[in-house]
Amino acid sequence: MPLGFATVDLDRLRRQGLPEVIYAPGKQPGEIAAIAVTLLARSSGPVLVTRLEPRAAETVLAEVAAGTAGTGGATDAAQGYRAGAHIPGRYDAAARLLCWRPAPPDGCRVAVVTAGTADGPVAAEAAAVASAIGLDAREFRDVGVAGLHRLLAVADDIAAADVVIVIAGMEGALASAVGGLVGVPVVAVPTSTGYGAALEGVTALLAMMSSCAAGVSVVNIDSGFGAAMAAHRLTFALRRRTGASQA
Amino acid sequence: MPLGFATVDLDRLRRQGLPEVIYAPGKQPGEIAAIAVTLLARSSGPVLVTRLEPRAAETVLAEVAAGTAGTGGATDAAQGYRAGAHIPGRYDAAARLLCWRPAPPDGCRVAVVTAGTADGPVAAEAAAVASAIGLDAREFRDVGVAGLHRLLAVADDIAAADVVIVIAGMEGALASAVGGLVGVPVVAVPTSTGYGAALEGVTALLAMMSSCAAGVSVVNIDSGFGAAMAAHRLTFALRRRTGASQA
Amino acid sequence: MPLGFATVDLDRLRRQGLPEVIYAPGKQPGEIAAIAVTLLARSSGPVLVTRLEPRAAETVLAEVAAGTAGTGGATDAAQGYRAGAHIPGRYDAAARLLCWRPAPPDGCRVAVVTAGTADGPVAAEAAAVASAIGLDAREFRDVGVAGLHRLLAVADDIAAADVVIVIAGMEGALASAVGGLVGVPVVAVPTSTGYGAALEGVTALLAMMSSCAAGVSVVNIDSGFGAAMAAHRLTFALRRRTGASQA
Amino acid sequence: MPLGFATVDLDRLRRQGLPEVIYAPGKQPGEIAAIAVTLLARSSGPVLVTRLEPRAAETVLAEVAAGTAGTGGATDAAQGYRAGAHIPGRYDAAARLLCWRPAPPDGCRVAVVTAGTADGPVAAEAAAVASAIGLDAREFRDVGVAGLHRLLAVADDIAAADVVIVIAGMEGALASAVGGLVGVPVVAVPTSTGYGAALEGVTALLAMMSSCAAGVSVVNIDSGFGAAMAAHRLTFALRRRTGASQA
Amino acid sequence: MPLGFATVDLDRLRRQGLPEVIYAPGKQPGEIAAIAVTLLARSSGPVLVTRLEPRAAETVLAEVAAGTAGTGGATDAAQGYRAGAHIPGRYDAAARLLCWRPAPPDGCRVAVVTAGTADGPVAAEAAAVASAIGLDAREFRDVGVAGLHRLLAVADDIAAADVVIVIAGMEGALASAVGGLVGVPVVAVPTSTGYGAALEGVTALLAMMSSCAAGVSVVNIDSGFGAAMAAHRLTFALRRRTGASQA
Amino acid sequence: MPLGFATVDLDRLRRQGLPEVIYAPGKQPGEIAAIAVTLLARSSGPVLVTRLEPRAAETVLAEVAAGTAGTGGATDAAQGYRAGAHIPGRYDAAARLLCWRPAPPDGCRVAVVTAGTADGPVAAEAAAVASAIGLDAREFRDVGVAGLHRLLAVADDIAAADVVIVIAGMEGALASAVGGLVGVPVVAVPTSTGYGAALEGVTALLAMMSSCAAGVSVVNIDSGFGAAMAAHRLTFALRRRTGASQA
Amino acid sequence: MPLGFATVDLDRLRRQGLPEVIYAPGKQPGEIAAIAVTLLARSSGPVLVTRLEPRAAETVLAEVAAGTAGTGGATDAAQGYRAGAHIPGRYDAAARLLCWRPAPPDGCRVAVVTAGTADGPVAAEAAAVASAIGLDAREFRDVGVAGLHRLLAVADDIAAADVVIVIAGMEGALASAVGGLVGVPVVAVPTSTGYGAALEGVTALLAMMSSCAAGVSVVNIDSGFGAAMAAHRLTFALRRRTGASQA
Amino acid sequence: MPLGFATVDLDRLRRQGLPEVIYAPGKQPGEIAAIAVTLLARSSGPVLVTRLEPRAAETVLAEVAAGTAGTGGATDAAQGYRAGAHIPGRYDAAARLLCWRPAPPDGCRVAVVTAGTADGPVAAEAAAVASAIGLDAREFRDVGVAGLHRLLAVADDIAAADVVIVIAGMEGALASAVGGLVGVPVVAVPTSTGYGAALEGVTALLAMMSSCAAGVSVVNIDSGFGAAMAAHRLTFALRRRTGASQA
Repeated sequence: MPLGFATVDLDRLRRQGLPEVIYAPGKQPGEIAAIAVTLLARSSGPVLVTRLEPRAAETVLAEVAAGTAGTGGATDAAQGYRAGAHIPGRYDAAARLLCWRPAPPDGCRVAVVTAGTADGPVAAEAAAVASAIGLDAREFRDVGVAGLHRLLAVADDIAAADVVIVIAGMEGALASAVGGLVGVPVVAVPTSTGYGAALEGVTALLAMMSSCAAGVSVVNIDSGFGAAMAAHRLTFALRRRTGASQA
Repeated sequence: MPLGFATVDLDRLRRQGLPEVIYAPGKQPGEIAAIAVTLLARSSGPVLVTRLEPRAAETVLAEVAAGTAGTGGATDAAQGYRAGAHIPGRYDAAARLLCWRPAPPDGCRVAVVTAGTADGPVAAEAAAVASAIGLDAREFRDVGVAGLHRLLAVADDIAAADVVIVIAGMEGALASAVGGLVGVPVVAVPTSTGYGAALEGVTALLAMMSSCAAGVSVVNIDSGFGAAMAAHRLTFALRRRTGASQA
Repeated sequence: MPLGFATVDLDRLRRQGLPEVIYAPGKQPGEIAAIAVTLLARSSGPVLVTRLEPRAAETVLAEVAAGTAGTGGATDAAQGYRAGAHIPGRYDAAARLLCWRPAPPDGCRVAVVTAGTADGPVAAEAAAVASAIGLDAREFRDVGVAGLHRLLAVADDIAAADVVIVIAGMEGALASAVGGLVGVPVVAVPTSTGYGAALEGVTALLAMMSSCAAGVSVVNIDSGFGAAMAAHRLTFALRRRTGASQA
Repeated sequence: MPLGFATVDLDRLRRQGLPEVIYAPGKQPGEIAAIAVTLLARSSGPVLVTRLEPRAAETVLAEVAAGTAGTGGATDAAQGYRAGAHIPGRYDAAARLLCWRPAPPDGCRVAVVTAGTADGPVAAEAAAVASAIGLDAREFRDVGVAGLHRLLAVADDIAAADVVIVIAGMEGALASAVGGLVGVPVVAVPTSTGYGAALEGVTALLAMMSSCAAGVSVVNIDSGFGAAMAAHRLTFALRRRTGASQA
Repeated sequence: MPLGFATVDLDRLRRQGLPEVIYAPGKQPGEIAAIAVTLLARSSGPVLVTRLEPRAAETVLAEVAAGTAGTGGATDAAQGYRAGAHIPGRYDAAARLLCWRPAPPDGCRVAVVTAGTADGPVAAEAAAVASAIGLDAREFRDVGVAGLHRLLAVADDIAAADVVIVIAGMEGALASAVGGLVGVPVVAVPTSTGYGAALEGVTALLAMMSSCAAGVSVVNIDSGFGAAMAAHRLTFALRRRTGASQA
Repeated sequence: MPLGFATVDLDRLRRQGLPEVIYAPGKQPGEIAAIAVTLLARSSGPVLVTRLEPRAAETVLAEVAAGTAGTGGATDAAQGYRAGAHIPGRYDAAARLLCWRPAPPDGCRVAVVTAGTADGPVAAEAAAVASAIGLDAREFRDVGVAGLHRLLAVADDIAAADVVIVIAGMEGALASAVGGLVGVPVVAVPTSTGYGAALEGVTALLAMMSSCAAGVSVVNIDSGFGAAMAAHRLTFALRRRTGASQA
Repeated sequence: MPLGFATVDLDRLRRQGLPEVIYAPGKQPGEIAAIAVTLLARSSGPVLVTRLEPRAAETVLAEVAAGTAGTGGATDAAQGYRAGAHIPGRYDAAARLLCWRPAPPDGCRVAVVTAGTADGPVAAEAAAVASAIGLDAREFRDVGVAGLHRLLAVADDIAAADVVIVIAGMEGALASAVGGLVGVPVVAVPTSTGYGAALEGVTALLAMMSSCAAGVSVVNIDSGFGAAMAAHRLTFALRRRTGASQA
Repeated sequence: MPLGFATVDLDRLRRQGLPEVIYAPGKQPGEIAAIAVTLLARSSGPVLVTRLEPRAAETVLAEVAAGTAGTGGATDAAQGYRAGAHIPGRYDAAARLLCWRPAPPDGCRVAVVTAGTADGPVAAEAAAVASAIGLDAREFRDVGVAGLHRLLAVADDIAAADVVIVIAGMEGALASAVGGLVGVPVVAVPTSTGYGAALEGVTALLAMMSSCAAGVSVVNIDSGFGAAMAAHRLTFALRRRTGASQA
């Protein structure tokens, strides 16, 4: 559906079990609000805005709630707006995530594992997005390979999840270690943590792509969102297989 | 289990539902045969050798079959060898894959989609490994985005799979197109197809990591094997969920 | 024509059908005004300043209008100034473009296609420059390949243009998809949209250079201007062929 | 049309005025012959194979001529084959191009300009492809910027073309010089000529993308083919404009 | 001579005909002043500080003039300070250069040639340093290859110099053009002018290193200083040859 | 020991002779204080925080001293806090290092050698960390290879150390020169000093890795800390050899 | 000592406890033999040639043994030759190392740890060079992080060494894991094992430089020799400390 | 002068004091011979072919001598041929240089300094080209910074030259050391000597560009020719200054 500045993909729910997710950078709060209103009115399921700064989040929440999406007299959008006005939104500052209509838990477990404290914001995004789309996310923080006993102490808990998200910067070695310990899908997220030779995450990205643990796959640098969506694809397949109803 | 030149990981079957896979480059045929014999004797499930050239494959097959693993008097290995001698191996030249004891099909469907004819060898590896470990692989070849109708014509068939492997070189755009069409996991494999700015697969790798389709994850350049193993991780989770017995 | 800090190329109109365009970064407003005055006085056709920030634009407009170009007593420049003082300039903030004497439309149609909302500023520059030099620009926004139906819905409209400018960041896949759908020239503009592996536009640049769609050519990252000028070259050839008078 | 190993895009002639072009690397001669036969039988216009080595060319020519395309009993292909058997093919070793049914000249002039003798093979490909698809190609060789008088001596002849292809390795400066001299479209082809800091063409590619001459666009390294196809797009637009019948 | 934070190389005048030059970034104004005082007291010839911001320049000038170098009671430094206090320093804001005791002109001519207006600051540094060390610098601005007639108009003047410094960003093509026009040493300076594929000067650097004009040599990105010092080395050799007394 | 946001590695002292060191970037002052308190209470030996900005250092020092670690009612942490409250911390602004319980000198000598004044901050970190963990650090500053006599003058003093840390940016040549002069371990630290082709330290890193002096090993860019820790490993081995008691 | 083509550094034994080591690539067998003869005659301690191919090794051994160094009548070399003729040399094909006069063991223990079988040749070089210069080398092969139990099983044995050399390709994660397990110096050697994103060892190099385990230092890709020399520097310091006589 | 495949720049002698030099790669022996004949007939001064393999050199020499240039009946070329037939050519295999009519020595001294034996071929090219164009070249081999006394022993001899060419691979540190020792122009040539992090000469190139020794300028990797031509430019300026007649 064309809004002038954007063409909202209202068919995505049917194809992928989730409405389009709004990526905030490069969009004005008014544009974000208008897209959100459209999705709330014309789609079902969770509506998410990622990488949204706190100040912009306030504006977006207010515009959606007050019925002033700022795109003017488009009747459709206005109707969407009225529908959306009564749906409460929630902003998670650590994850920079704004969410309306989170999905109910569907029983699928995601382990979110980080190498160091500095990887926390990416883990927060991964966990918050995963929860918002119905996954049961559990975090295992600061278990990098420089102290292997920390990882081994929680290895069985991690292996019990349906999918594991491994988040690490610097050399990204944790992805290989976890990849060798568990049999389920491992989605690795390189982070821009570190300096110098870490090349703002490129080193971790290349290292994870070259992992000696077979079948580890990788998403973009700092993309907690991407990892959660990869996990969503897994549960989409699982649910279709097991006949579960979609979110 | 230490063989001198290698330390075979006999516990991997328990952790990951598959024995260790043997990566041929950098190993002598005699070393490969000795590891294979050990795995055949001391483990169960499929035993695979990847990236094996035809000539070396002949030697390995012969050494395993004739009981002359060449690592000398190690009693354990010799016993393994006798056990392995009666297990027929099969070499797939297009996939450069040698396999003993392939797993029976477990009903999980993998779509292997390629952008162009030149991506064929990587697709062959992905499909052959997937089949050897019990997946039901179906190939969709030469449906790159320069002729979108080719892709759209098979989109529903692709979307019906449990996991999709997308293989593309040059600019790797097919991963984004498929990622937007299906809800299930998409594992993208950049290939070294192309020249100049394709940078031997690095461009496709970076492009796939930057995909505008959310939740697409990526494995190493030309790694049909890695993609098949990522698919295996998915079925590992699926089977554990649904209580199916492991291969 | 030497101004001390610059050597204005007054012959360019003859060679290329357009006067020299002023690239603002690295130039003082006074310098920009002096060059503009010289071009307004000594050349004909549109005079453009690209990548000009709003504040500097105000200064330049004022200096040109008030006859205080700030380069001192150079008689030629002063005369140019008087000539220019009565020519109204227009600043387009979205495109960061300042323009005097826009060319009348010459009937050549340019489709400006973007992958996502964040590519908007580059599209704005491309469309504004194209319009200023006499092309008939029409925008098709937010039709990236993650939702192919959006692109297919407008494919015929795009194919009807004389030249297509495709603007995309992240993995830049839209250039290949459009390149395969239309027969006319496709000028691809990689943008710095995205993060991590997008490498500030380098990934899209390499991907577009490696496009599987034959005959797509590429201009610099974020260079909406460059794409519009490539389109101008096309219309220069078209007009010369068809005997149309130049702007 | 699916051939098993390839999905031939038979609709391309309608969309782009040319049948699909066959890129030889990574394809077996038998596969190339089968695709060629299909295109000769089911499409009209020139059929081209690029980057084909002499020995493979002989095999392909023979297979097409003798009716033994090697893809077995596919009736359609066999019919195509019979049709194709009487169409003479021509191999140009310098251009590594194999061509059947070249298009008649349509009057559009392409100037192919090279910086040095070592850029010759890329120029040969560009000129041969251009001629095969109906363009009137004229070469200007060895006029690199280290001896500007050589370029200036032919500048007017180059400027008279409808489109200019500039082919240069090392620092690729010729693209900027020509871009400044002519008003028509300039398609730059970086070549892998040079050593060390030339980085196998990457330096010329980056330099051409950064050209100070506005509106120069760039295709892949060593891609004489890509440049010729960009020129074809231009003539596609020109012909549509002027109502000329397509090849 | 050790100052604690620095070890001043007082022998350099003998070896190279110039005292050590002070590179400001990373040094405190007090440290710069102390080194300058030492050089003024213990060496002869011009004393220069490069890349010095205006505010720091004021502080340095004041500290040197007032005899409060801030390094405490080091007797030597204090003596040097008194000696230096009466030597007037001059700061050139465009060149970010601070200079005491400039060398008298020695008759050696340097042509400083720039491609565009944005390269001006680098040219200013090159010219100011050259003048400070006794060279006769003449600037030729904005003669980039996109308008070759501008360069050709001054080619003879440039060729008459003893050494030519060519300063260009973007694709850096000017170095090759000038390199082909003159027989004297050409020192090329890539600049960080441009965006996107210009890679902050790396593209120009690589292009200049790959120049098709033989014998062009290159210094670091934006290093007007480095080019002037390369010119100084030439005059050092010239003077030694011709028996001229050193500055 | 899990603190929620971090998993403190309390076993490290046993394995490596030093408690875990706290890397400040990406951590809140409250988190740093809580980890420090835990280490002070539950471990022995020096507790260090690296890359800590002055303002954050004040907060951390205050929180540790005042018993308000901010992690709430965790009894263990609270006890640790009381223990830590009486241990004075010291902040070294030049080194950006915060330290409690520095180790007593153990007689091992470290030479910290820098190429230029701008490498000072990295040297300060190396020397401060080295001193805090019990090494006897001596600095040799500004002895880069552009004035070899400066290095040769102190070569014997440098060679007398037990380990040499060489810190250099730009081209990093000092590592090779020192590597050839001394027989003891040389740990090279590339710095981000320089501009343009120095690539923010990557050039020095690559150069040091490629050193013609055999046995020079390298740590990350600007990592004075890493070099000091490499020196600590050496003294760990030395002390174990000679039976000395650990810090 | 100048041999025309080489300047042998006969003082190195005094400075570093070892004669110069001969790096074979780029040298003719005759040149290698002449240098070896000079070192055997004029120096004491082990004489090594690294990266020497088998065929060249035969030639060198023969030339040294037969007294036909091929550099002509230089008396000194000839005398050296006669002295060297009776010293038996030994070639290790796996390590590509040629050695005369190996040093007696000095009691210093080096653990050489590899991630995979394909890293074997680099380990062989490291171990062979280490043994030749008097270290007690013990190998731990194929203990990469994809199967952590393999590493943990030998962790105590590794930690008991005086210095640990960790050799790994692909993502190089083993360096971080080992770095966290042991307190002694860890010298990491990235290898060119792997493909695609492994970038021929550059990924492992960057990853090791970015290791989360503090104090790990890195030598060049595939440089088993460099690691052994770094270990030698350690023992040089150890021996000097403990008063042991040098080799 | 156009030969079809090449446009010979016969004016270069006037502009630069030397005829065009023929770069062999990418040219057929017949093409090289034809250009050489043209230059011998129509120009004066030395005629050089660089990077010519021995076998091709034989063919070229024979073709030039026997009067069968292979370009057919072009009268001019044939005349040139006859003229050239009596001019003896000399091939230097170490330098891969073919030369006719070498220039007489003009008294200008060039020091060619190399870091290691493996840099020999580049030094050979530099020295041979320098000699061929009239310079007095003296080589100083294998004086790399890992043994500084070797360099210091010849420092005064090097400093006495009019220009110094420094040739080094690996980390390229020698350029900085020499740059600090001499006052005359230093032209640095990075070589592809080394492996791994040496990146086939790119590391040395970047390091030399970042040299801490002011005024060192750099030519392309392995370009002994480029360095000699830079030296020629210096002597061109020197001779013009001192009124000496040109070669």
